[in-house]
Amino acid sequence: MNAPIYDFRSDNVGGAAPEILEAIIAASAGTAAPYGDDDFTRGMNERFSAVFERPVQVFPLSSGTGSNAVALAALANPYGSIYCHETAHINVYECGAPEFFTGAKLVGLPGRDFKLQVDALDEALALAGRGNPTRVQPFALNLTQPTDFGTLYAPEEIASLCAVARRHGLRVHMDGARFANAIAALGCSPADLTWRCGVDVLSLGATKNGAINAEAVVVFDAGLAREIPYRMKRGGQVLSKARFVSAQLARYLADDRWLERARLANAHAAALARELEALPGVSLVAPAEINMLFLRLPEAAVAALDRGPFRYYKLGPDVRFVCRHDQEQDGMDALVQCIRGAVSRSH
Amino acid sequence: MNAPIYDFRSDNVGGAAPEILEAIIAASAGTAAPYGDDDFTRGMNERFSAVFERPVQVFPLSSGTGSNAVALAALANPYGSIYCHETAHINVYECGAPEFFTGAKLVGLPGRDFKLQVDALDEALALAGRGNPTRVQPFALNLTQPTDFGTLYAPEEIASLCAVARRHGLRVHMDGARFANAIAALGCSPADLTWRCGVDVLSLGATKNGAINAEAVVVFDAGLAREIPYRMKRGGQVLSKARFVSAQLARYLADDRWLERARLANAHAAALARELEALPGVSLVAPAEINMLFLRLPEAAVAALDRGPFRYYKLGPDVRFVCRHDQEQDGMDALVQCIRGAVSRSH
Amino acid sequence: MNAPIYDFRSDNVGGAAPEILEAIIAASAGTAAPYGDDDFTRGMNERFSAVFERPVQVFPLSSGTGSNAVALAALANPYGSIYCHETAHINVYECGAPEFFTGAKLVGLPGRDFKLQVDALDEALALAGRGNPTRVQPFALNLTQPTDFGTLYAPEEIASLCAVARRHGLRVHMDGARFANAIAALGCSPADLTWRCGVDVLSLGATKNGAINAEAVVVFDAGLAREIPYRMKRGGQVLSKARFVSAQLARYLADDRWLERARLANAHAAALARELEALPGVSLVAPAEINMLFLRLPEAAVAALDRGPFRYYKLGPDVRFVCRHDQEQDGMDALVQCIRGAVSRSH
Amino acid sequence: MNAPIYDFRSDNVGGAAPEILEAIIAASAGTAAPYGDDDFTRGMNERFSAVFERPVQVFPLSSGTGSNAVALAALANPYGSIYCHETAHINVYECGAPEFFTGAKLVGLPGRDFKLQVDALDEALALAGRGNPTRVQPFALNLTQPTDFGTLYAPEEIASLCAVARRHGLRVHMDGARFANAIAALGCSPADLTWRCGVDVLSLGATKNGAINAEAVVVFDAGLAREIPYRMKRGGQVLSKARFVSAQLARYLADDRWLERARLANAHAAALARELEALPGVSLVAPAEINMLFLRLPEAAVAALDRGPFRYYKLGPDVRFVCRHDQEQDGMDALVQCIRGAVSRSH
Repeated sequence: MNAPIYDFRSDNVGGAAPEILEAIIAASAGTAAPYGDDDFTRGMNERFSAVFERPVQVFPLSSGTGSNAVALAALANPYGSIYCHETAHINVYECGAPEFFTGAKLVGLPGRDFKLQVDALDEALALAGRGNPTRVQPFALNLTQPTDFGTLYAPEEIASLCAVARRHGLRVHMDGARFANAIAALGCSPADLTWRCGVDVLSLGATKNGAINAEAVVVFDAGLAREIPYRMKRGGQVLSKARFVSAQLARYLADDRWLERARLANAHAAALARELEALPGVSLVAPAEINMLFLRLPEAAVAALDRGPFRYYKLGPDVRFVCRHDQEQDGMDALVQCIRGAVSRSH
Repeated sequence: MNAPIYDFRSDNVGGAAPEILEAIIAASAGTAAPYGDDDFTRGMNERFSAVFERPVQVFPLSSGTGSNAVALAALANPYGSIYCHETAHINVYECGAPEFFTGAKLVGLPGRDFKLQVDALDEALALAGRGNPTRVQPFALNLTQPTDFGTLYAPEEIASLCAVARRHGLRVHMDGARFANAIAALGCSPADLTWRCGVDVLSLGATKNGAINAEAVVVFDAGLAREIPYRMKRGGQVLSKARFVSAQLARYLADDRWLERARLANAHAAALARELEALPGVSLVAPAEINMLFLRLPEAAVAALDRGPFRYYKLGPDVRFVCRHDQEQDGMDALVQCIRGAVSRSH
Repeated sequence: MNAPIYDFRSDNVGGAAPEILEAIIAASAGTAAPYGDDDFTRGMNERFSAVFERPVQVFPLSSGTGSNAVALAALANPYGSIYCHETAHINVYECGAPEFFTGAKLVGLPGRDFKLQVDALDEALALAGRGNPTRVQPFALNLTQPTDFGTLYAPEEIASLCAVARRHGLRVHMDGARFANAIAALGCSPADLTWRCGVDVLSLGATKNGAINAEAVVVFDAGLAREIPYRMKRGGQVLSKARFVSAQLARYLADDRWLERARLANAHAAALARELEALPGVSLVAPAEINMLFLRLPEAAVAALDRGPFRYYKLGPDVRFVCRHDQEQDGMDALVQCIRGAVSRSH
Repeated sequence: MNAPIYDFRSDNVGGAAPEILEAIIAASAGTAAPYGDDDFTRGMNERFSAVFERPVQVFPLSSGTGSNAVALAALANPYGSIYCHETAHINVYECGAPEFFTGAKLVGLPGRDFKLQVDALDEALALAGRGNPTRVQPFALNLTQPTDFGTLYAPEEIASLCAVARRHGLRVHMDGARFANAIAALGCSPADLTWRCGVDVLSLGATKNGAINAEAVVVFDAGLAREIPYRMKRGGQVLSKARFVSAQLARYLADDRWLERARLANAHAAALARELEALPGVSLVAPAEINMLFLRLPEAAVAALDRGPFRYYKLGPDVRFVCRHDQEQDGMDALVQCIRGAVSRSH
C-alpha cells in the first residue's frame, strides 16, 4: 500500500461530491439534444434564476479560463481595455486567454490585500484617455472574488467599485472561480454579491468545490447574452454533450451542500491559520478569509515540507496551502506537526 | 409515462458507455494534480502510444471544436491557409473557431463524395502563390475522416493526399470526430489510418461513441507538440480536473469495446439503408459507409416523420439519420415503418 | 541611355499627376496637427461631401488593403462572415488582411464576368444559418467595383445586390480601388454608384490614378464611423502627417482631372483591345470595360513578349495588360506589333 | 494675413525637408514595380546597409505604429509577452496595435527616467514562469530610444539590457521614432546604438525629422526577415507605390542632413530648457536630452500660454514642448517671454 500523500496544492486536486457523480449517471439515461439545447440545461437555467432571485441566462462550459474569456468577450471590444487588479487570475494565470477572446488590453492596478481600490480605479479611469484614438478605450472591470490570494471584497466594496466603473462607462465581470467560498465566508446571498451590487456577468466555478469541470457564465443583462453562443462556439467552449455539465450545475445549486462544502473548506483553512500563525517565524502573507493560506515560512520549515509527504505550491518566497471540502484531518495534523517540528528545531 | 421519442439527430444525443461512467467514478478517489500533470493523463498517453504503435503525445480536452482548433494552431501561421473539403466540419460548423485559433484562412475545395481529390488538391496548391506576399501561404491540409456526410477515405487515398500536401510543404491534420466508426468500417489499424499515411496530428473524438465530452489531440510529430500546452491554455482548452477526461480516454482505448460500439452503430445504419433504399422515391445522397444516412425522401415521408415521435435533422431538401451504439431497435423499426407507410400511401 | 521598358503590369507602376505633386509641396508649408486633426483633412472631408452630394465622413490612409480592412472592420464582427465574389481582391490578394482586421470569414461565391449575381447571393444567404451558433453569421457584402478582372457592375446591379444584402441584414462595402475608372466608364455620378444604391462604406483609391499612396475610407452612415479611428490606430493605419494624404485627396477631387485621367486610361485599353482582339488566336478573357485587358494569347505571342521590352503579369494561362493615364503611345504600338508579329509568323 | 501660431505640439507638425520633396518628385518619373519590388527600394536597402555598416533588410512603410507592430510580430508569438517600460509608446499610445499584430501581451515595468533598468528587468524575467503553460512566455524586449519623455539610453545601458534579454531567451526591438535625435545627441554611430549592442530589429522613423510618412523596419537578423512581407501585407502595411517612401528614406540617409536637422532641433530644446529652467517655479520633469521638454509650470504660466498663440500638449499637470528642425526662433522667443512674463507677474 502506498504511503499517504497530503495534497495542499489546490482545491481542484480533489474529487467529486457524491451527488454530483449521481447527477452525471442520471443524465446518461435517454437522449438529449447536443450543444445545450436540452432540458437539463433549461432546468439548470431555472435553478440559477431561483438561486439568484431573478431571471438569468446561464451558459455551461468546462473551463474556468474559457468562462472568464467568454464573459469578458461579451463586454470588451478589440480596441478596448479591461481593468483588473495586477494579481488578478485573468492577468497572470490564463496565458493571455482574455486578450485572445476579447482583443482587448488588460490594465492591472496595484491595491492593498490584492484588491482594487475605489480611488485608484477612479483615478486610473480618469487618465485613460476616453475618446482619444491613440489610447485603448476602457470597456470592462474585472473583480476576482475571492481574489487569487484568498481575500474577499465586502459587498459594499463591490458596489462602490461597480459604481465607479458605471460612471466611466464600464461593464463589470466577476471571476467567481471560488464563488461558493466567498458566499460561505461573507454569509450573504448570491444576488447580494453580484447583480444587486452592479455586476453584469459572473463566471461561477463549481469545479473547485466538488464538481467535474463544470463552470457557468451567468449573465444578468439579457442584452449581453445575445452574442455569447457565437463567441462560445468560435472559442471551442460549446460542449457536445452539454447536458453532463448542466446536470452537475443544476444539482450543485439544488440544496445547501455546495455551501456546506465551502464552509467546511474555509473552516479547515482557518484552523490551519490559527495553528501555524502562532509559530515563531511564521506569518500570513494575506488574511485567511477563505480556504487558502499564503504564508511566509522559515527556511527550515520549507525544507522539512519538501522532505515530507506533502504537495503544495511555492510563490517566490511564500507558500500556498489550499484546503478542500474533502480535506483529510490527518493531512492537516501532519502539516502542522511538520512545520512546528522544523521551527522548534531551528529556534 | 412519456411516449418514446426516437432520436436520430446525432450520435452525441446518446448516453455514456457503462465502463466510461465507472472510469469517472474511479478517478474521483484521491487527489491528482490539475491541468493534465497527473498519472491518469500519463497513463492515457501510454495507452494511446500502445494503440497507435508508436510514442505519441496526447492532450485531453472536452470540445471537438477545441480539439480541431488547437491541432490546426500547431500547424498554421496567421498569414497561412488550411486546405479542406468545402463541406468539412471545420469549414462549416465551427463558427470560425479554426480561423480564430490559427489566424489562417480556410480554403474549401469541391470533390466527389464529400472528399478531397488528389488532382484537384495538387492543382489548387500549384496555383496558391507560394512565396507571393499578397497571397496567404498554404500551411496545412485538413482531412475529415469520416466526412461530415459519412463517407470514408481509404488509407491509400489518405496516403496520396498526404503525399501531395508534403510535396507542397503542408502538414496534415485529421479530424476524427468519428474515428472509431472509420476504423470499424475500414478494418484497418489506427496507425494505418494516420501516421503511416502521413498524418501529423489527429483530433480523436470519443464523445460520439460513448464518452462524455472526451476528446484528444494526438500528435505524431514531437516537434509539433511543444507549443500546444500554451495554445490550449490561451484557448481555454486546458481542463482544471483533466484527469476526468484522461481517465475516460484511457478506458475508451483499453479494450475493443470502442470498436464494438462503432461496429454496432455502423451496422444499424447499414440495415436502415438497405430497408429504406428499397422504397420507391427514396435515394441515398451519400454512400452509407458508417453510422450516418443522408437521404432524399418523398415529401409525404418527410411530412409523416414530422408528425411522428422522431427527432432528426434536415439539410436543405435532404434528411440525416444517425445511429448510435445504444440505438433502440424499436426506433429503427418505427422509422422504417413510418417512411414505408407514407411512401406506399402516396404511390 | 537605357532602352525603353514598356510597363503594363499595373496602373500603380506609374507616377503622380503634376497637380498632386504640387498639393504635396503646398502642404509642406507651415505646421498642422498630426493624425488627421488638421485643416487639410477637414477640407478634404468637405470636398468629398460636395462630390458625393451629401455629408460623408472620410478617413485618409495610405494603403488600399488597409482601407478595405478598416472599412470591413466597421461592418463585421469576429464571428461573422463577409460575402464577396470568389475572385474579389479582398479574398485573393490581401494575404488575409480583411480576416485579420475583422476576425470574420470571407465567403467567396462564383458568378459570371467575375461579378456576384443576385439570385446566387440570395440563395447563399438563405442557407447561411442565421441564428445557428455553429455557423458564422453574415454581416457584410463586399462589391469590388470595378472587379479585379476589369468588369463593371451597372448601378442597377449594385442596387439589386444591396437590396438582397439589406433584406438578409448585411451592410455593404464597395472596394473602389479603381473607382475613377468605373465612374469614367459608366458616366454616372459618385453618389449614383454608391449610397444611392445602398452602399454603406466605400474604399476609394486614388493611388492607381495619379496619387501617391492616397486612399480614403468614405463612410455614408455616420453611426459606422464612430469606431473607425480606433480600428485605424490599432491597425497602424493612422498617418502621423495625415495632411499629406488629405491634401492629395482634396486636390484629386477638386476638378475633373481625375476623371479625365481615368477616361484616357480606359480609352487606351479599349484601343488595345480592338487591335488585339482582331488577331487570330487572341481572345478576351473578360470584357474590356475599364483600363485592364485580360487575354488568352497564342504561345508564340507570349514567348515574343517575354523577349521584348515589356513588363506584364501572367495569371495561369492568361495575360494582363493595364493602361495608365500616363501611358506612352509607343508602348502600346510596340505591344501590338510584337503580338501581331508573333501571331502572323505562327500562322 | 493670419497672426503667427507657434506650434510646439510635436515634431510631426512640421513640413518636409527640401531634398525629401525633391526625392519624391524625382521618383515620380518613369515606372517602377509596386509593393517594394523596385530599384528605389533596393537602393534604399543598400544605403541602410552602408550606414549601418552591415547587410540589413529594410522594409518601407508609412506608419510608425505599423512599423513597431510589424517588427514586434517578427519576434513574438500569440502566447508570448513583450517587455517594455510602462511609459513606452507601444504600451500607451498605439491603441493596442502591438497586441493586435502579435497576439502577445505587453508587460510594462517601472524605471527611473522613463527607462528600463537592468536589475528590474532581470528579476521580472526570472519570475515570468518560463515553461509554465498558465503564463504568457517572454519573447521580446522593447526599448524606446529616445523614450517618449525624451530621455536616452547610453549604448552601454542598451548592451546590458540586451544581454539580460538574450540570457532569458528574448529578442530585442528598438522603437526609434526619433532615432536621429538619439544619434545626434549621443554622437555614436547607428551601428553602435543598435546591432552592436544586441538589437535585432529597429523601427527607424524619418517622419518626425523632415520626411513625409516614411518609416523603416530595419532587420539585423536575416532569419527574422523571412515572414515580414506576409505580416506587412496582412497588416495593410505594404505600400502600392512603395518607391515614394523608399526614395525618401534613401535620400534621408544619403548625407548628414538628417543628423544636422536633429542636432538643430536638439539644440533648440536645450536652449529653451536653459532659459525656462532658470525661471522661478519652473522645473524639468525629465532631463532634456533631445528635442523635447517636459516641464512643470506655475499655473499662471499655463494660463498665459493658453491665451497666447501657442500650441502644445498637456500631460496631466505637466506640459510638453517639442522643437522641430524647422523651428522658428520667433516662436521660441515668444514662448520664453510668455512664461517669463507670467512667472514674474505672479511673484
